[in-house]
Amino acid sequence: MELLLERDSLRDGRPVYRQIADHFLAEIERGRLAAGARLPAIRDLARSLRVNRDTVALAYDTLANAGAVESTVGRGTFVRARAAEAVAATEAAPPDLSPMTENLLELERSRPRFGSEVDAIPMHSLIPDPSLFPAAAFRKLLGRVLQEVGPELLLYGGPQGLPRLREVLAERFREAGIDVGAEGIVLCHGASQGIHLATRLFAEAGDTVALEEPTYNNVLAVMRGLGLKTLPVPMRDDGLDLDALDHALARPDVKLLYAIPTFHNPTGVTTTLAHRRRLLEIAARHRKPVLEDAYEMDLRLSGRAIPSLAALDTAGLVVHLFSFSKSLFPGARVGAISARGRIVDALVAQKQATDLSDSMLLQAALAEFVANGGYDRHLRKLRRVLCERCDALLGALEREMPDGVRWRRPDGGYQIWVELPEGIDTGELLADAVGAGVLFAPGFLFNHDGRASNRLRLTFAMAGSEPLQRGVMTLARLVRERLERGPRRLARVHI
Amino acid sequence: MELLLERDSLRDGRPVYRQIADHFLAEIERGRLAAGARLPAIRDLARSLRVNRDTVALAYDTLANAGAVESTVGRGTFVRARAAEAVAATEAAPPDLSPMTENLLELERSRPRFGSEVDAIPMHSLIPDPSLFPAAAFRKLLGRVLQEVGPELLLYGGPQGLPRLREVLAERFREAGIDVGAEGIVLCHGASQGIHLATRLFAEAGDTVALEEPTYNNVLAVMRGLGLKTLPVPMRDDGLDLDALDHALARPDVKLLYAIPTFHNPTGVTTTLAHRRRLLEIAARHRKPVLEDAYEMDLRLSGRAIPSLAALDTAGLVVHLFSFSKSLFPGARVGAISARGRIVDALVAQKQATDLSDSMLLQAALAEFVANGGYDRHLRKLRRVLCERCDALLGALEREMPDGVRWRRPDGGYQIWVELPEGIDTGELLADAVGAGVLFAPGFLFNHDGRASNRLRLTFAMAGSEPLQRGVMTLARLVRERLERGPRRLARVHI
Repeated sequence: MELLLERDSLRDGRPVYRQIADHFLAEIERGRLAAGARLPAIRDLARSLRVNRDTVALAYDTLANAGAVESTVGRGTFVRARAAEAVAATEAAPPDLSPMTENLLELERSRPRFGSEVDAIPMHSLIPDPSLFPAAAFRKLLGRVLQEVGPELLLYGGPQGLPRLREVLAERFREAGIDVGAEGIVLCHGASQGIHLATRLFAEAGDTVALEEPTYNNVLAVMRGLGLKTLPVPMRDDGLDLDALDHALARPDVKLLYAIPTFHNPTGVTTTLAHRRRLLEIAARHRKPVLEDAYEMDLRLSGRAIPSLAALDTAGLVVHLFSFSKSLFPGARVGAISARGRIVDALVAQKQATDLSDSMLLQAALAEFVANGGYDRHLRKLRRVLCERCDALLGALEREMPDGVRWRRPDGGYQIWVELPEGIDTGELLADAVGAGVLFAPGFLFNHDGRASNRLRLTFAMAGSEPLQRGVMTLARLVRERLERGPRRLARVHI
Repeated sequence: MELLLERDSLRDGRPVYRQIADHFLAEIERGRLAAGARLPAIRDLARSLRVNRDTVALAYDTLANAGAVESTVGRGTFVRARAAEAVAATEAAPPDLSPMTENLLELERSRPRFGSEVDAIPMHSLIPDPSLFPAAAFRKLLGRVLQEVGPELLLYGGPQGLPRLREVLAERFREAGIDVGAEGIVLCHGASQGIHLATRLFAEAGDTVALEEPTYNNVLAVMRGLGLKTLPVPMRDDGLDLDALDHALARPDVKLLYAIPTFHNPTGVTTTLAHRRRLLEIAARHRKPVLEDAYEMDLRLSGRAIPSLAALDTAGLVVHLFSFSKSLFPGARVGAISARGRIVDALVAQKQATDLSDSMLLQAALAEFVANGGYDRHLRKLRRVLCERCDALLGALEREMPDGVRWRRPDGGYQIWVELPEGIDTGELLADAVGAGVLFAPGFLFNHDGRASNRLRLTFAMAGSEPLQRGVMTLARLVRERLERGPRRLARVHI
């Protein structure tokens, strides 16, 4: 074999290893090195060319990356079958995505797409009703703060977020029993970014996060997108199974718990004070942080508020997430993370390294809206509407649903978890419902492995009382039809 | 040893493994198990308690996590010295942060904090001057779009971003030679989030990213915050060293290149067409994606535009980042990522899994501002001001700086890279400059390992012509003073 190699790589502008690799590629393309041909041993070629062995090894790696050769330990490096085609294909192919991104795309593909039915009754959605948004008041505030503060409001903010909004939020949180000041709050781009940021403080690719099952479906995607594994901890009628939680947090690979103790999504469960205390004892014993998602905390519809995990936390383990997305509107993209000690510093650093800062303009307008009482007035009005809708939905379930269908009145939030008789796959039922103009969220969406479920989530976020009642009538008819056909075995859906 | 164990763990509510662990903790606390004492072998204890061996192993893991015992393979499990104190300390300690977060905090600690000097001349800052922001026009547009579209504009947007803004941007990008439609653009929360999202498509914790050296300082934090390693590729006077790049991209652990080919930060270099073509050939040969940060692309001050990497890319390897932060204002927090094929799907999925969506309200107002010609009018005005400031700064450098100080006129952007004579550490010079009321960005900030540098970055973003001239006079005086003291060896700064 002849290898015309310019040892002074600067002469033709290519590094030495590249010249070696290109030489072999050309030989393969011209058919002078056939499939199965053995390349010289690294040591021999390095000696004959008077180059370093690493240089030859790098050339061979490059050939292997291009799909031209393969190496077998102890045997040598050989030209692969169809090497020339492989090289040509490689050069035209897009770059590889990381395994965690492929994993996320696989989850996305398995998800149902809702909502092409324009007239369908939207009992699937946790998105608040825009007809209830105080849009005009917010518009005026936006104009006012920008005029009063001036163009400086369009600069970058600090990564921790606007002090004024942190102050008014801290005051509200303290009223709810959480011992936090403005310095313990980090503003973020919706609670969804809060989940993302806080999780990354404690876990990195390959680690495991303990999650309720069922749980908020998007959090499963968040964890996949971060390359994390999830460990399901079953939800009981009164909240997380604490024995199972104890076992989960004992595992060294489990770095944190994500939980929704108040108006749980999707089940609507609010845990008792005793349950919360026991949960915190378990977390403290294992010294594992708890990410408390309190995204609907301002939407209590009945009963008295139960202190949040953050209010009960004495060990500094709870990271508390608040959001305006459900109680005001999602479009402000403002959430708030409360934490203590070094966790706050770490959150600020990760926020800065993620997207520098959020919009000060939106935060400033929101701060005024909270401070001037507009937010509380809005909440009072919103809760009145939601109580009425919730009653309408519960009344319709009571009237329409056949025996064997179970649900519970939620103390707040937007969602009611409905259990159908065993054997009804709510994923299959959804196909019937879409055809009949009704949408709901089937239970498999909230299971870690996407397995079928006889449960479904109804919401009274988007739809008014009258459509809700019509929706339940339709749904009840579809359930009865399924029951008359007899029970079926639940299928497994892969996500 | 006596172990009173309720085999029916439900009796006292604790799981069996926990009862075993608690028993030993109590024995240690009471002093009945002293440091060095050996616990029963797992197999023996499991047999005598009639429990599974895994249960005992889990109990011992829990004790080890709490710092109470340590295990040596083949020898057994022993009570540690000061085990009781360790357990008590553990229970009060905050949770552990992930290694990547600790790593990020370490980087943050090593950074200088600027800007307590209210009157200092801000030649360090890449933040645009708010006195030039078209704030009044934007305020009116915000009010108008919200009134015209209605409260729906305060809902979640799609994760890809508002179609209208993607359309007007695609039109501009096509004028710049980039073959992209609205469907190939993903809006994001500033180019900084674009870097974060796009990097995560290709690399996960433990992988390596090739970066220019020197490079945009915040990108070093972004990579640390993602648990990624960085591989520096040296910048020459004409751009990236392409031989070094070829070697870097040949490494299997290097998953992508992040580069700023136009108005490079911090050096101001804009690469030639030939350099860009060679860079793309190298990337295609190794099939490695290139993240092209074009954050100042709309700020050309002289000469003709050179096609971006995205415009020259035939292999679908370039992910192109655009931002309004420098050419309009950062407070809108709007950037745009252009890509092709599956990369777009992956970006949308990662954006959704990161923070669901951005503010449609801000995107809608920005879309109108671009569509109605307001953005282009603003750019013309801004470029006029920047040309004047750039001339003032260059003129002052020419007049004031002693021999041996070098710089080049940039074709655009906000920054000028100044090389001082060997032996002057610009990190040390900064201390003098702060005292004299002048701020600049010392070269070590932009080095991967934070090593000292005789270079510094001056900007004409925030300061007007007159303060820039005064600032250079002061700086030149400080440089002359250092030169008179004679050369010094550059110190190494750890970051």
